[in-house]
Amino acid sequence: MSFRAYYLDEKKELQLNLSIADVHAALASRTGLLWVDFCETTEEDGRILEDVFGFHRLAVEDCVETEIHPPKIDVYDSHIFALFHGINHVTESDLVETAELALFIGSTFVVSNHNYPLYSVEEVRYQVETDSRLMQRGPAFLAHTLIDALVDNIRPTIDRMSDIAALVEEAALGEPRQSTLEAILRLKRSVRRIHRTIVPERELLNRISRGEYGIIETESRVYFRDVYDHLVRIEDLNLNVRDSADNALSIYLTAIANRQNETMKVLAIAGAIFLPLTLLAGIYGMNFDNMPELHWQWGYFAVLLVMGTVVLSALAAFWRRGWFRLGRRKARVLHSFAVERALLRGHRESKD
Amino acid sequence: MSFRAYYLDEKKELQLNLSIADVHAALASRTGLLWVDFCETTEEDGRILEDVFGFHRLAVEDCVETEIHPPKIDVYDSHIFALFHGINHVTESDLVETAELALFIGSTFVVSNHNYPLYSVEEVRYQVETDSRLMQRGPAFLAHTLIDALVDNIRPTIDRMSDIAALVEEAALGEPRQSTLEAILRLKRSVRRIHRTIVPERELLNRISRGEYGIIETESRVYFRDVYDHLVRIEDLNLNVRDSADNALSIYLTAIANRQNETMKVLAIAGAIFLPLTLLAGIYGMNFDNMPELHWQWGYFAVLLVMGTVVLSALAAFWRRGWFRLGRRKARVLHSFAVERALLRGHRESKD
Amino acid sequence: MSFRAYYLDEKKELQLNLSIADVHAALASRTGLLWVDFCETTEEDGRILEDVFGFHRLAVEDCVETEIHPPKIDVYDSHIFALFHGINHVTESDLVETAELALFIGSTFVVSNHNYPLYSVEEVRYQVETDSRLMQRGPAFLAHTLIDALVDNIRPTIDRMSDIAALVEEAALGEPRQSTLEAILRLKRSVRRIHRTIVPERELLNRISRGEYGIIETESRVYFRDVYDHLVRIEDLNLNVRDSADNALSIYLTAIANRQNETMKVLAIAGAIFLPLTLLAGIYGMNFDNMPELHWQWGYFAVLLVMGTVVLSALAAFWRRGWFRLGRRKARVLHSFAVERALLRGHRESKD
Amino acid sequence: MSFRAYYLDEKKELQLNLSIADVHAALASRTGLLWVDFCETTEEDGRILEDVFGFHRLAVEDCVETEIHPPKIDVYDSHIFALFHGINHVTESDLVETAELALFIGSTFVVSNHNYPLYSVEEVRYQVETDSRLMQRGPAFLAHTLIDALVDNIRPTIDRMSDIAALVEEAALGEPRQSTLEAILRLKRSVRRIHRTIVPERELLNRISRGEYGIIETESRVYFRDVYDHLVRIEDLNLNVRDSADNALSIYLTAIANRQNETMKVLAIAGAIFLPLTLLAGIYGMNFDNMPELHWQWGYFAVLLVMGTVVLSALAAFWRRGWFRLGRRKARVLHSFAVERALLRGHRESKD
Amino acid sequence: MSFRAYYLDEKKELQLNLSIADVHAALASRTGLLWVDFCETTEEDGRILEDVFGFHRLAVEDCVETEIHPPKIDVYDSHIFALFHGINHVTESDLVETAELALFIGSTFVVSNHNYPLYSVEEVRYQVETDSRLMQRGPAFLAHTLIDALVDNIRPTIDRMSDIAALVEEAALGEPRQSTLEAILRLKRSVRRIHRTIVPERELLNRISRGEYGIIETESRVYFRDVYDHLVRIEDLNLNVRDSADNALSIYLTAIANRQNETMKVLAIAGAIFLPLTLLAGIYGMNFDNMPELHWQWGYFAVLLVMGTVVLSALAAFWRRGWFRLGRRKARVLHSFAVERALLRGHRESKD
Repeated sequence: MSFRAYYLDEKKELQLNLSIADVHAALASRTGLLWVDFCETTEEDGRILEDVFGFHRLAVEDCVETEIHPPKIDVYDSHIFALFHGINHVTESDLVETAELALFIGSTFVVSNHNYPLYSVEEVRYQVETDSRLMQRGPAFLAHTLIDALVDNIRPTIDRMSDIAALVEEAALGEPRQSTLEAILRLKRSVRRIHRTIVPERELLNRISRGEYGIIETESRVYFRDVYDHLVRIEDLNLNVRDSADNALSIYLTAIANRQNETMKVLAIAGAIFLPLTLLAGIYGMNFDNMPELHWQWGYFAVLLVMGTVVLSALAAFWRRGWFRLGRRKARVLHSFAVERALLRGHRESKD
Repeated sequence: MSFRAYYLDEKKELQLNLSIADVHAALASRTGLLWVDFCETTEEDGRILEDVFGFHRLAVEDCVETEIHPPKIDVYDSHIFALFHGINHVTESDLVETAELALFIGSTFVVSNHNYPLYSVEEVRYQVETDSRLMQRGPAFLAHTLIDALVDNIRPTIDRMSDIAALVEEAALGEPRQSTLEAILRLKRSVRRIHRTIVPERELLNRISRGEYGIIETESRVYFRDVYDHLVRIEDLNLNVRDSADNALSIYLTAIANRQNETMKVLAIAGAIFLPLTLLAGIYGMNFDNMPELHWQWGYFAVLLVMGTVVLSALAAFWRRGWFRLGRRKARVLHSFAVERALLRGHRESKD
Repeated sequence: MSFRAYYLDEKKELQLNLSIADVHAALASRTGLLWVDFCETTEEDGRILEDVFGFHRLAVEDCVETEIHPPKIDVYDSHIFALFHGINHVTESDLVETAELALFIGSTFVVSNHNYPLYSVEEVRYQVETDSRLMQRGPAFLAHTLIDALVDNIRPTIDRMSDIAALVEEAALGEPRQSTLEAILRLKRSVRRIHRTIVPERELLNRISRGEYGIIETESRVYFRDVYDHLVRIEDLNLNVRDSADNALSIYLTAIANRQNETMKVLAIAGAIFLPLTLLAGIYGMNFDNMPELHWQWGYFAVLLVMGTVVLSALAAFWRRGWFRLGRRKARVLHSFAVERALLRGHRESKD
Repeated sequence: MSFRAYYLDEKKELQLNLSIADVHAALASRTGLLWVDFCETTEEDGRILEDVFGFHRLAVEDCVETEIHPPKIDVYDSHIFALFHGINHVTESDLVETAELALFIGSTFVVSNHNYPLYSVEEVRYQVETDSRLMQRGPAFLAHTLIDALVDNIRPTIDRMSDIAALVEEAALGEPRQSTLEAILRLKRSVRRIHRTIVPERELLNRISRGEYGIIETESRVYFRDVYDHLVRIEDLNLNVRDSADNALSIYLTAIANRQNETMKVLAIAGAIFLPLTLLAGIYGMNFDNMPELHWQWGYFAVLLVMGTVVLSALAAFWRRGWFRLGRRKARVLHSFAVERALLRGHRESKD
Repeated sequence: MSFRAYYLDEKKELQLNLSIADVHAALASRTGLLWVDFCETTEEDGRILEDVFGFHRLAVEDCVETEIHPPKIDVYDSHIFALFHGINHVTESDLVETAELALFIGSTFVVSNHNYPLYSVEEVRYQVETDSRLMQRGPAFLAHTLIDALVDNIRPTIDRMSDIAALVEEAALGEPRQSTLEAILRLKRSVRRIHRTIVPERELLNRISRGEYGIIETESRVYFRDVYDHLVRIEDLNLNVRDSADNALSIYLTAIANRQNETMKVLAIAGAIFLPLTLLAGIYGMNFDNMPELHWQWGYFAVLLVMGTVVLSALAAFWRRGWFRLGRRKARVLHSFAVERALLRGHRESKD
């Protein structure tokens, strides 16, 4: 059996590692607070949930299936069944992955369930084992602690995404590479997925903190409100990442257009300088009998001089039009206000 | 007559293949549970629905017409009329096709109606025929089973779309082809159609599970809530497909721009190398009398040397600017985190 | 006077072509059902509406003015005033045109008003003249029949737009033409206009069918619900047209980019092949005294051989890179699943 | 003092040009209807509003400040304070400008306030001076008349924008000019600003007409409903302008891409024709000893013939591919249905 | 201890710079109005808030943490806890930065808290110190003054952003530079951040002014309504900035396309003029024995004449097609109505 059970009995003493029989007894006493945590839940565990605890078949199925379910709160007669999502860790195939935590919250018990070990649950387990006061504050507070740990665990992922967003934004300023585009798109997808995870969850927490579910006592609601605030903050950071990714995409796309222009400039400069000169050389390569210039003493050198002059003045003209300027962009310009300052200064001066 | 009828009489015995007279009798008894399933409904069937069952003309018209109607629930005095949509199968002209299931739910009967054979209804029929307990749980549960089968049948289509989305995303990384664009657009259209099918349906199920329709008993509502959760999950997968299709489109469009740049590079390299050299050859092809170089012993070889040097150093310059790098993209880069890892590593080092 | 009046008196007999005095008498009797239909309403008609029927000045102004008003329902003491829109026909300046129908619905009368002859009203008039039972079902049912005919008349326009959308989508696959773009944009504009016509109307019908307006009897509400369903269906088809138009636009824009690439390829191929060869010819056109190759017996033919080899191998290289492939696109590829099938097949094989 | 006051006393006689003392007396009588219109309101006027009328400091500040405030209705004990916006006139820096009208509506008075002369207020003033019946219908009706005149005054601006939109759409079909883009963007900005002006205002009028503000009598509400309808209509026209501007932008952007393609075609044609021929000329310009063709009698003319043939057949090939076709677009194609008609005709024929 | 306390005792006398003991006494008296302002709040201050004032741990944590929290109002038994955001100042890494102000509002006290000195709080402190009447109006009014000062302080930032937006829009009309793009994107990001700051805040103020929080007396609500109006106004200006930034982006992107076209024109002109002429020179450089033109007296000069004619007529043709026109754009065209005026004039004339 893949569960761990904690029981704070009516004498406020904490019992660890209960057997299934102990759980039975604790549940039957209808006092104290029992916490059972199921991990990698099997069909057999499902039967325990159904038979020992008397949970509804559909709720138990949600626990046994490894598939992700939408966040929700179902109200039953003696307990509520809550499903919450966290963002667990960064995988190879995508930046973020959804972690699911199911909670049954009754007046004397909390049953938690997850399909693989969750860092946030481990954290709460450690807290409970070292300090039984956490469980003395009742099932709603324990449930809040589990949800809060789950939600707080989203923060490091978001922070790492913020780092990546800043770096990708900078990379987009350089030479456009396919891999930069892919990093941008992956970031945008992660943002959207986190958004879709957080929004329904936030709504659920809002409803808990407004007191829609009777089993949560009034004094605990403010704690759920606090989790709600954390989610609002995380969503705000998430939208900042989206802004960065959108900016990076805009910069990337104009960088592609700029690169194309640079390619074309190389050709245009070559064409505009050498095509006329080749014609000149071609003219004096003609075989007409009567071409007086060919017999001039310094004709050849005059032509060379004309050619040199043309090349130099053409280069000068292109230089003046700024065709050579591109590519010498300074790094990190995105983070300086040179432009705005220059604009504002020019503006003020023009007023004087 | 194109219907099949099942009747669970007051002795909990299941009768199969009822005639129209049996249906009449079963209906009049006002006990047990009668299920009549109409397929490829004709005008004649319509008259049965209107005369035998006493359904409203408008509801019957919705059954007889082959056109798709919006999902809805109409409440009548003795029964409710519900219309639900599934996604039936993939056709040649589009990825998805809507399947319509109409249900009349009364206190002793369920009448289902569809314009062509539905896999999901067959499934339920098979269940009923092998195990009469399904019908013992009342009309609301039977109706729920039918709707659930319909909704679950969307899943394989979505899964196949997810497969296609992943493949199309990869195809977009390669040479841009018109057919890739079309596959992307077809995918996006399918996503939108599924979205439009699911959203109103989800709303209906939400209202059923909140108890807005009196005829559905309280204990059955949780099952409709479960179907609701399935739809939320399907919509989530659907939005993932949309994300993939959007990404594929972004990659495809930049791939077009990149290809254009590659075409231009070929020309720019050719122009930038050969135009100056052609001028050089042209110069020594001029017919001036006084061109001392022409008479030098090693003039010709010196020119060849200069030309070779120019070609090699130009190629080196282009190489250094990365003009030859493109096109040697590795496959499946989308699914590796090389970029982010490199970025983060560089970032950490720069802090040291 | 530009009106036609029908009166079903208390003996259930239908009187046609009432004079203004008859209308007066029918109205005063406060029994039966009077239907007066005004077309090309003048100021004089307006005075009749105001004086004989006692309608509010503002409602009458809405009838007399030829301008389009937003759909609405105004509730007065003894009647309601409803304004509905249809899509009348295709004109030269735009694909769709709004048709307005105003209705006053009292307990013994229906007054309809429109600024030019409406096909849908003619239809209802024909029905009334041939079968008086329509009017026996009361004013709400008559009003419903008029609105239903108006709404059903949108269907042919949408169907024609669907046809155009399919053709335009196909045209976008061919050579990009300005006229294709214009057809796409016109289609999108029509879709938006129909959307803006339908949405407020749907909301009004929803409110009627929920029983917000007392004058509509409960048994008639289901008919308004049916009109509501028709509008939902029409809006769904409308969104399908929008999807097609959006797809066509995406294809069109990439087709422009592809065409640009094709133009550039022509130039790049010409440049990459002939610029080096021209240099070669230029080299042997130089006039150096000491150019041993010039005096070789087969020098000229060796150069020709080199040139031919270069041309052929360059063409082969471009061929291998697929530069000649474009333009031989097969028609109607949009409607085949070759891509997806190929992708899925390759996917399955790679798993083996 | 920059106000004008009108007083309809209890004998229904209209007094014009009241002094501040008269206003005092009229206000104290608590009968009849007093209308005071402030224009270019100064701090001194503000003190009158505060001391004589007893309005709240914050409302008075909104009147005195020249800044634009959001539309709103504030309810005080004895009166309501309403702020409405119109679109005043076209200025140099932008197409539209917001005009603000503040109204205090009590049971025996209306006080209007605006920071510069409004055409709509002048209109109402003229009406009042020529016909005192307007004021006999009470303060709510007078206020409605002022708001209605303000709203109706948006219409000419929208109509002018519609004209500009149609012209800009046509201009976008021609040669793409920077100024066309700017006109499109200015139009879009004006549309957005009008949208932002109208939407909150519409909501306010909706709430007045639903009877949320007690001071407006029931019989006046229908008039506010009428102003609401005008705003709905104006917003609809506004969205039509937006559609035109969006279309014009799409056309403009593809026109830029087309122009680029035309530029490239000029080069591609020149390159594809002359580069091979130059090679041919170069070949026969080589100085090999053994080049038999050089000594053929008609060699030179054969080469000229080959060159002429190549030029002509290349031109023919480009012609067949339609490279010369662009640029001969007919004007006003946007408003003809040639495309759709041709498409539909071809479609029907292909069915036969 | 980093706080400053003010106490208006029951004799309406203001005491400044209270010690912690004074605060204790003032609080215990339950009369007068006590204002304590915490800045750079430490853990120790947190303990004062918790122990002396008896605030909830979670609220105190929100004060002590330096992180930004979402704006909110939490209602406790004896006080409300409000969190509001301002936009503090422009930093190097971004245009705008969020400033957080926490407020505890009780019946006899206001406690404000912020993590670094706020200009707006300093302002209110100065007002209180110079004129005690501000505190005589009660805690709600004092809180309103603090929030109002915070919100008003957003205005200068928005005004500066408006200036930058106008300048950036102008810069986008010139040569496209990377820095212009970055300024546009930074502006858009700032707009979005301000939007996200203002919207929830506006909602909170709306709820205060509607009287949802009992502790705010009715007569103070109108002042919160006034702050709400300020926020609506600021959001409106913010959206104007967004419009400018969007316009600038559109102009910037078309400017990139235009620049590319200009580059290509240089090449196309060079190619179209010199490639044919080079062929001509090449032809007369061929070494055929029988080339009669070579021996004509004026052959060479005729060729030169032909070449000159071709160059001049080609230049004339390009000139007529407007290829040289671009680049001579006049500054500030965005702000003139030349286009619309010209269009309207042409329109009117074409009607005559």
